[in-house]
Parts: sequence; C-alpha cells; structure tokens
Amino acid sequence: MNVGIDAVAIHAGKLRLDLAETLAPALDEEPEKFTKGLGLHASSFPDVEEDIVTMGANAAHKLMERKGLTPDDIGRIDVATESAFDNAKPVSTYVAGCLEQVYGEDFHHANKGERKFACIAGTQSLDDAYNWIRAGRNRGRAALVIATDTALYARGDAGEATQGAGAVAMLIAEDPDLVEMSVEQGFGSADETDFLKPNQQFPSVDGQRSVQVYLARMREALEDYESVAEETHPDQFEYIPFHTPFPGMVRKAALLGYRHMIRNTEIEADLTAAIGEQPRPDGFDDESQYRDAVRDYMDALKETDAYAAWYDDTIEPTLDIARHVGNWYTGSVHVARASALRSAREAGIDMTGKSLLLGSYGSGAQAEIHVETVQEEWTEEIDALDIDEQLAARRDISFAEYEEIHDVHNHDKEIDIDAFTTPSEEFVRDGSGPMDERTYRYVE
Amino acid sequence: MNVGIDAVAIHAGKLRLDLAETLAPALDEEPEKFTKGLGLHASSFPDVEEDIVTMGANAAHKLMERKGLTPDDIGRIDVATESAFDNAKPVSTYVAGCLEQVYGEDFHHANKGERKFACIAGTQSLDDAYNWIRAGRNRGRAALVIATDTALYARGDAGEATQGAGAVAMLIAEDPDLVEMSVEQGFGSADETDFLKPNQQFPSVDGQRSVQVYLARMREALEDYESVAEETHPDQFEYIPFHTPFPGMVRKAALLGYRHMIRNTEIEADLTAAIGEQPRPDGFDDESQYRDAVRDYMDALKETDAYAAWYDDTIEPTLDIARHVGNWYTGSVHVARASALRSAREAGIDMTGKSLLLGSYGSGAQAEIHVETVQEEWTEEIDALDIDEQLAARRDISFAEYEEIHDVHNHDKEIDIDAFTTPSEEFVRDGSGPMDERTYRYVE
Repeated sequence: MNVGIDAVAIHAGKLRLDLAETLAPALDEEPEKFTKGLGLHASSFPDVEEDIVTMGANAAHKLMERKGLTPDDIGRIDVATESAFDNAKPVSTYVAGCLEQVYGEDFHHANKGERKFACIAGTQSLDDAYNWIRAGRNRGRAALVIATDTALYARGDAGEATQGAGAVAMLIAEDPDLVEMSVEQGFGSADETDFLKPNQQFPSVDGQRSVQVYLARMREALEDYESVAEETHPDQFEYIPFHTPFPGMVRKAALLGYRHMIRNTEIEADLTAAIGEQPRPDGFDDESQYRDAVRDYMDALKETDAYAAWYDDTIEPTLDIARHVGNWYTGSVHVARASALRSAREAGIDMTGKSLLLGSYGSGAQAEIHVETVQEEWTEEIDALDIDEQLAARRDISFAEYEEIHDVHNHDKEIDIDAFTTPSEEFVRDGSGPMDERTYRYVE
Repeated sequence: MNVGIDAVAIHAGKLRLDLAETLAPALDEEPEKFTKGLGLHASSFPDVEEDIVTMGANAAHKLMERKGLTPDDIGRIDVATESAFDNAKPVSTYVAGCLEQVYGEDFHHANKGERKFACIAGTQSLDDAYNWIRAGRNRGRAALVIATDTALYARGDAGEATQGAGAVAMLIAEDPDLVEMSVEQGFGSADETDFLKPNQQFPSVDGQRSVQVYLARMREALEDYESVAEETHPDQFEYIPFHTPFPGMVRKAALLGYRHMIRNTEIEADLTAAIGEQPRPDGFDDESQYRDAVRDYMDALKETDAYAAWYDDTIEPTLDIARHVGNWYTGSVHVARASALRSAREAGIDMTGKSLLLGSYGSGAQAEIHVETVQEEWTEEIDALDIDEQLAARRDISFAEYEEIHDVHNHDKEIDIDAFTTPSEEFVRDGSGPMDERTYRYVE
C-alpha cells in the first residue's frame, strides 16, 4: 500500500522583518551575524488578525480548494504546534470551525487531534495519518495534517533573529501525488533539557546544548533507520531536508550526516589521499583523542570539493525558503521539503522515483529519519505552490512596528493596533467570545 | 491482525479528600449534592512530591515490572494529558527519563509523543498505537500509552467536587492479553465552547452546555460507528465504559444510549404497552414538540424495570472506581473499563469473548465509540490490578490540608510544605533544574 503526501499548501505570516536592514541596526549587531552566521535574511510574522488558527486554516483551505475536496473527503485533522493558546481544546477544532464556515458540510465525523513535541510534532502527525491509512481505518478518506506555529522568543533573547511564523498543510492519502513515505523509520530520542517552555510562551534555550543534542539525536536516528532499512549513501538521496531552526544548524547536521554516510564507501576511499581515512573509535585509547581526531577530519572534509558539491546539490536547495521566513517550528522540515522540490522544478530535474531523506527534529529531544519517494505527479503539486507570491506580497515592517507586533502576539500583553495588511479571501481572527475562546471569520 | 490492550496499570494520587465528610461542610453544601447528585464520594489528589510525570512513570513502571519488560521491548511512549506544564517538551520524555533511572537500558529508539484534546486524548493515543502496529511499523515492539492528569478546578468553582488525579498506563501489543480493539470506530466531533483552558491551568466551564455537548457528540459517534460496523443492541455489550467526569453524567449518557439502541428492537416492542413507542421525528410538525415527546419518553423509560436492570448490569459496574477517585480526565474512560472488568471478576462472570462498547469523550468537543473484545487471559491482568490496595492506603486530608495541596499543584503559587506520605519504591519529584525543568528521582 502506497501512502504519503498527496498535496501541500503553505501559508506564511503576512509581515516581513528584514534582519540585515532592520533588526541588526536596532540591536546594534553586524548584519553578517544574521545573514552569514545564521543564514537568515528575513522573518515572517503574523499580522494583527493572524494566529496559528488562521494560518493553519488558510493553508488547509487553499489545499482543499486546489484538490477539489470537501469536508466529507477528510477523515482526520491533526494539528501539530508548540504555540497552543489553550491547555485543553485543540487547535484542530478551531481550524475545522473555520473551514465549516466556507463549506456546506461539516467535519463532525473526522477525528481531530493535536500533537506537541517541540518541532518534531508535524512529522509525528504525518506518521499518525500514514499509520491510520495503512491500518485500514480511513474509509477511503484522506487526513489533513497542519503544522502551524508562531515561533516567538522573548525580546532580547539570542533567538530573536531566528523567529518566524507560518503553517504547512499536508494531505495524506493512498496513492499520493507528491511523495510516498517509507514504512521504515529511525528514531533518536532522549530526555534532554536543551529548549523548554515551562509554563511560559517564550522558550528558555541552552543554545550550545541545543546544537549538540540536535546532532546527537539525528545521528542516533540515522543509525536506527539504517538498522531497519539499509546503509545510507550520499548518492541515494536527491535532497535531504532537515529541520531548519536556522540554516547554520543544517550546515552542521549535513556535515555530520555526510561523514556518517561516506564511511566505508568509495567516497571515503577517494578522499583518503587528500584528508586521510575518517577516525574510528577503536583506533584510539581515549574518547577525547578520538573526538579531537573526528573534529580535525570534519574540518578537512568540509573543505573538500566532494563535500562542497554534495552540499550544494543536496542541502542548499532545502534552505531557500527558510532563509526568508525564519523558523516555523513544526512546519520547518516540511518547508525544507517544499523548498527542495521547488528548486528541482526550477532546475528542470526529473524527480519522479527519486528519494528524499527527511531529518525531523524536536527539542526535548527527538530526531526521526524517514525516506520519501517522489511521485509522478509531483510537478503539478509543486507548480501549484504560491509561496513566491506570498513572500513577495508581505508587508515590510519597521523595528517600531516589529515591537508592536511582538506585543500583539504576546499572551501576557494587551495591545490594540490596526492590522498592517487588508485581508482578502482568508480567515481572520476577530476577537474573543464570552469564555475567552478565540473567534474567527472568513473575509470574502 | 489482533491488536489491543495487553496490560493495564493504574496509579492513584496518594491523598484522599472525602466529599461528604470534609468538602461538603467546608463549602456549606449538603453531602447528598456530591454523593447522590454527582455520584462521587471522594477525590484523589497527588501528594507534594507527585505530579503527572511521577503518576505516569509509577503506573508505567508497575506495568513493565509485572509483564517482565525492559525498554528494548517498547517502541513508542505516548502520553495523553491536559495538565502539561511545558508548552514544548512532552511529558513522555520526562517519563522515559524516570524509567531509565531504574533500567539498565534506554528508550533512545522509542518514538515519544504527547496528545492533547481534553479528556479524549488517552483513547486517541491508544488508537495511534493500534494503528502503528497494524501499519507494520512496530518491529515486534509494544507501545506504552499513559493517560495522566491532575484534574484541578479553581477554588470555589462548581467543578471543585469532581476533581481527581491519577494515571493509567496501558501496553498496546499484538495478540493482547486483555482486550482486542475493533478496527471500526465512530466519531462525533464539533467545534464547541463547553470547557476551555485559554492560557490558564484551571478550566472555564459552561456546565449546562458541557452536558448537552457530551450527549450530542456521543450520539453522533454511536451513529457513525453503526454506519461502519452494525446496528448496536443493548444485549451485545457486557459493559459500556463511558468517559466519567462524574457518575451523574454517565447516567444521562446511558439513558440516551439505551434509547438509541432499543429503537426498532424487541425491547422497544416489549415496552410499548407500558410507555408507548419512542417518538420519531417524522411524527411531529415541529422540532420542539418532538423534543418534548422524547423527554417524556426518556423519563418513562428510565423508570422501567428493563432499563434499570440493564443499567445495573452494564453501566453501574463501570463507576465503582470513579466514585472514589473523581475525574482523571484522559484516564477516566480507562478507569471505567478497569472498574467493569474488576467487577466481572468479583461476580465470577466469564468475560472471554464478550464485548465492551467504549464511549470516550473530550470537551471542545469530540466523542469516539469503539468496541473491545475481552481476551482469554483477562483474569490474570485484572487480578494483578492493585487499585483496591492503593485506594485503601491513601491518606485522608482535612479541608485545611486540601487547601494547601491545591496550592502546591497550582502553577501560579509557590508553597513549601512537607509531603503527607512517605514514598517507597516509586518515582518522586525532587525539584527543578536550572532551566526550570522538573527533576525526579526513584526512592528505593
């Protein structure tokens, strides 16, 4: 049974903060710290009338319209988020409520849910939908999986330049048009304290630990995947979309992955003359000597033409969108996939039958590796993405406007300002009801 | 493929508040309001060193010990809760961290997750685990599903008498020892504002609406189930465990379910002489006349011997434990199943091959109906439950102590008091780390 992602739609927050031009001078930082160090040029932010519900519902609506679906076609709506504003009622019920406003049918027989595990919950929700279909419980219906987040940090936090907001809606179905997902998965998961939100909206982050944990869990996940599938090789995958908190993190993960995948291959052999064989633990008396040797090897590997060419082909195209929107938490790895396929389309690469290795990650912490096979109809799906138009249409905000919009979306503040953009054919938040429930309407 | 619940373990909060003796006089209420109206005698509360993690880890540890499992046997740990204390890091990582303290193995290759949808997330996590196994992704391993909650209301709230705290750990596996789950499911789901926690720990509840929504969604779910399985009949099910926010709610749901299930059966025919046929919508000119007629029929039905006997046999035994522990939110329907099977064991009923109809519910709102078939080894599983010993061992607390313990578990308060009980062979919370992460240890 061939199950995977049939369609994808993206909704980016409608405001744009330029990191080099606007944020860097205001924070008295060098622009290169953001553009080169992090690899980011801009953040997307939700306008005043946007939130995780409207972004998710707008992405889902676009996807349903494009595929000609009505609520009866959907048996499951799962939302993945770490930006929830209610500790009991799931975001998926609000999203369904929005969509019911524009369709003559309801979702009363669809199973709705919400998953939380930092940034990996989007992929976990994909997995749940995939399993639900393979378990024979979908009654011919598809699943709507929505990864939606407003990734804000406290003002002044080191993460401020990595912020972003947006939603990715994905339709999971039998005989999908975009990618088939592998039954094989690899997990690397440990109880970690790298990034937390203990009873708070904005994260507490141990930045250095967070990088180490990302790499350690990703490596475990890759090894676990190989234990049930096969040894991986760099040439196997046309693209490797990783969770992208910022492109600089992916640079580190890609190098680690490359080193792992070339071990005992002709690539390692070919590089031996230039940089030697990669160190193996049994060649060393103590752990720290081994680690130093690995670090030296990685430094050398990074400079090789082989690695640079592989990185440019396999990793760089996954980062295009992230550079202009920032971190979307649960949506991030799914934005990376879309970015890669869009790039393939632009480059005229025939992706049918080609493989992607997906590296999902959530702090706390867990990595998951799975493989996707691109399907024949992928070009139509990617051509239908309107992400370039959305990004171009965003309204640039000044630093003073950024300060206001950060307060608008801060749960602890109340600030009443006019929206910066005029909504059209989309869901907007229009206030709160008597029990503090959020209320929404569709603007024609 | 036969997949279902292989084993279950329950951990009740270690403190006991007597509603008639202690809460009623302090609130200046008649004891019967709680004991007769709600159907509750006592609430369980977590002691000072208990929380959703320790309760969940203690239940899971008991279950693993009893089944002779180690971490390598577990491929998935999902926690369902609406009492989370972190907006990013899932409770399952903390639970795994606890268990790793007592086992020589880790859970690094287990997929950990967290689901939130008020009280229904426990059943949704069961479903995810079931689907994961049926999808062929479990590699021979079982899933650990933990429903854990501290169901507190704001002091003075009408829900104060329905509070409770505890965890239910369930092992989901192929060829289960306890119950097989049906592939068929029914859902009734709508965007409702009956019970919310908008950026707050304690719920805002519209009590009357909450009852209506529970009944409306449950009825939808039953009809949806029948559309994919078969018409239900009261004699088909030995027990019907419902989500039990308080036993009085189940009384209403049971009557509604009975009316629905006897329609067009010999039971309705036999009752016609005494109370007439039940009203059908097409016999009425307007909706309100029809509703009045249904209400009259239900009032009469409730007084029949046939209904009373069915209720005593099929519903009453599901409420035994709830009456003494209160609402456990995500764990509630799973406590009701255990209560029913324990009662069958005491009554000497041979349950092998018999069916249970599970009525799960979460505000916000969604009901799910599925069927479980009791397996041959069920007696060993039920005999291993130590819930009676746990309930008997609880420490009774005075109203002043209740006020203190409510504050201990209130996220907005800081209060430092000694624990009321002495831990032994269990996980306890021992404070917080530098990033406000909670820390735990095992007490020998």
